[in-house]
Amino acid sequence: MRLSDLQTPALVVERRLLESNLDTMAAALPGRRLRPHVKAFKTTALARLMADRGHTGFTCATIREVEGMAAAGLGEDLLLANEVLDARRLGAVAATGARVTVAVDSDVTVEAAAAGGVREVVIDVDVGLPRCGCAPADAGRLADLARSKGLEVRGVMGYEGHVMLVEDPAEKLRQTQECMERLLAAAADVGGDLVSAGGTGTYRENTWATEIQAGSYCLMDTTYASAGLPFAQALTVLTQVVSTSPQGWAVANLGLKSLGMDHGNPTIPGALVWFCSDEHTTFSELDVQVGDLLRALPAHVDPTVALHERMHLVDDDEVLETWPVDLRGW
Amino acid sequence: MRLSDLQTPALVVERRLLESNLDTMAAALPGRRLRPHVKAFKTTALARLMADRGHTGFTCATIREVEGMAAAGLGEDLLLANEVLDARRLGAVAATGARVTVAVDSDVTVEAAAAGGVREVVIDVDVGLPRCGCAPADAGRLADLARSKGLEVRGVMGYEGHVMLVEDPAEKLRQTQECMERLLAAAADVGGDLVSAGGTGTYRENTWATEIQAGSYCLMDTTYASAGLPFAQALTVLTQVVSTSPQGWAVANLGLKSLGMDHGNPTIPGALVWFCSDEHTTFSELDVQVGDLLRALPAHVDPTVALHERMHLVDDDEVLETWPVDLRGW
Repeated sequence: MRLSDLQTPALVVERRLLESNLDTMAAALPGRRLRPHVKAFKTTALARLMADRGHTGFTCATIREVEGMAAAGLGEDLLLANEVLDARRLGAVAATGARVTVAVDSDVTVEAAAAGGVREVVIDVDVGLPRCGCAPADAGRLADLARSKGLEVRGVMGYEGHVMLVEDPAEKLRQTQECMERLLAAAADVGGDLVSAGGTGTYRENTWATEIQAGSYCLMDTTYASAGLPFAQALTVLTQVVSTSPQGWAVANLGLKSLGMDHGNPTIPGALVWFCSDEHTTFSELDVQVGDLLRALPAHVDPTVALHERMHLVDDDEVLETWPVDLRGW
Repeated sequence: MRLSDLQTPALVVERRLLESNLDTMAAALPGRRLRPHVKAFKTTALARLMADRGHTGFTCATIREVEGMAAAGLGEDLLLANEVLDARRLGAVAATGARVTVAVDSDVTVEAAAAGGVREVVIDVDVGLPRCGCAPADAGRLADLARSKGLEVRGVMGYEGHVMLVEDPAEKLRQTQECMERLLAAAADVGGDLVSAGGTGTYRENTWATEIQAGSYCLMDTTYASAGLPFAQALTVLTQVVSTSPQGWAVANLGLKSLGMDHGNPTIPGALVWFCSDEHTTFSELDVQVGDLLRALPAHVDPTVALHERMHLVDDDEVLETWPVDLRGW
């Protein structure tokens, strides 16, 4: 099967670049030093390549991701790095023998974890990104509460998301350290072995966490590509030119339904992208004919993947495998 | 079943508002004067409510939408208002007895329609939006080419998408007329009965087209809500507060994976939205507790719907029906 046999738009992953990204990260953060975040690719076939490299614990963002990873036999150690108010589906996964740990940051979420049959939690700590996470000073109390409910407290997590794209390396390091000092203070009160944090943007700087929750490194996108990381853009969206205009623009069949748009327009190498509609991208400055195939680079990988049913592993023009994007939804 | 029984985030459609929108449009553009565009809701159960009101011809944006509508028994007259280079799947749908018409704007797409077994086409004309569509002066030649290939040419289509959100009513009318004069000039050269154009933003102004391709009117979004249209925002994304901070912000479990973001952040009534992450929206200025349910208004309905597997029809707190969003993908 060739690229030209695929229905466009289609997610296409270049095997050499993917493997290079996986190997580079596995060398930097071997085995359980990395807890890959499946939200960035939502595909158990790709998670399996990480497990094959020794990363057998995974981070999830949704209950569905936990369920899908366990169903795929990748449930050795799944951390739902997110708060849930109804943990019964997580308890059901744990009852099948998978190891399921959920983040808690309030009395209510501690009680939900216990009521849902989850046995293990981490205390989610606010390290500076205004999102989930308790105040560091409250972490010890929450851990005590969790233990009083019969829960095992494995440690802490915190996400320095606001530091991922800081440009100056020294400043990025300084801010990462500041965040992790907050997390380590909480960890001292909480106990347990886990200090789970970080992402693709800080995987080198964050030497304080016991494990890094990076996910985007395997596929990458144009936003992360500007951050000076040793990972290649392995994911493109294959698209076909469906129309050209005598006035100089052309139209490809990818758009708002096939691209995460929160970080802006996709990049079509060599072209000037004008705008995206539901199923179209209008561009100029690239000499194309109707029917030409192009490979566009999405600005943000995570929401892009969430729009597709499948991704295709390729060697240049040859399609090697087609993987279901089987962790979508909630 | 109540709202509180739903897994969040979830698409929720308020029945009274939906029916009001459907009835308002059916009164303004009865029967075949409207060719509803299914791309805005991607749900055959909702399309059926339109067919029940007399709109038995539909507009589609993807081959999958054509296939799904035909499979649901809604294939009386399906117009794929988009160019395709491989029309074999469309030909297969037509062979089942559905009526399938495809837009063409070049020699290549005419030949693809004929080769794929599609029997009917419309000539897609550039009326001013830089996207698909041939130059008006080329429309007659393309129609002749299509007829020479054995295709029935039903008429023309053109989309004045750049006029949808023009604020001044007189200016909107003037621009719509200008676009439709281009389309009517092409129609005179092409022949056939159809002059298909328009959208929710110009359904009142566009009196030149024989049929209007509106879709967003049934569910609406915050972008269209600012356009002074007589349609209510029937679609919300149900979300739950999963975390609150002593520093004054709170976090709900909707984000980039459940919201089309190309028109910006969602609106949470009464709240100040700070930013969206993959599965979170951080906001302030609204007094909430962990566990509270909120109904957020998406900025753009079409790509929001494309991210969800199902939508729920509700009367306030009561869930009446759950519909699969069964026209996703390509």
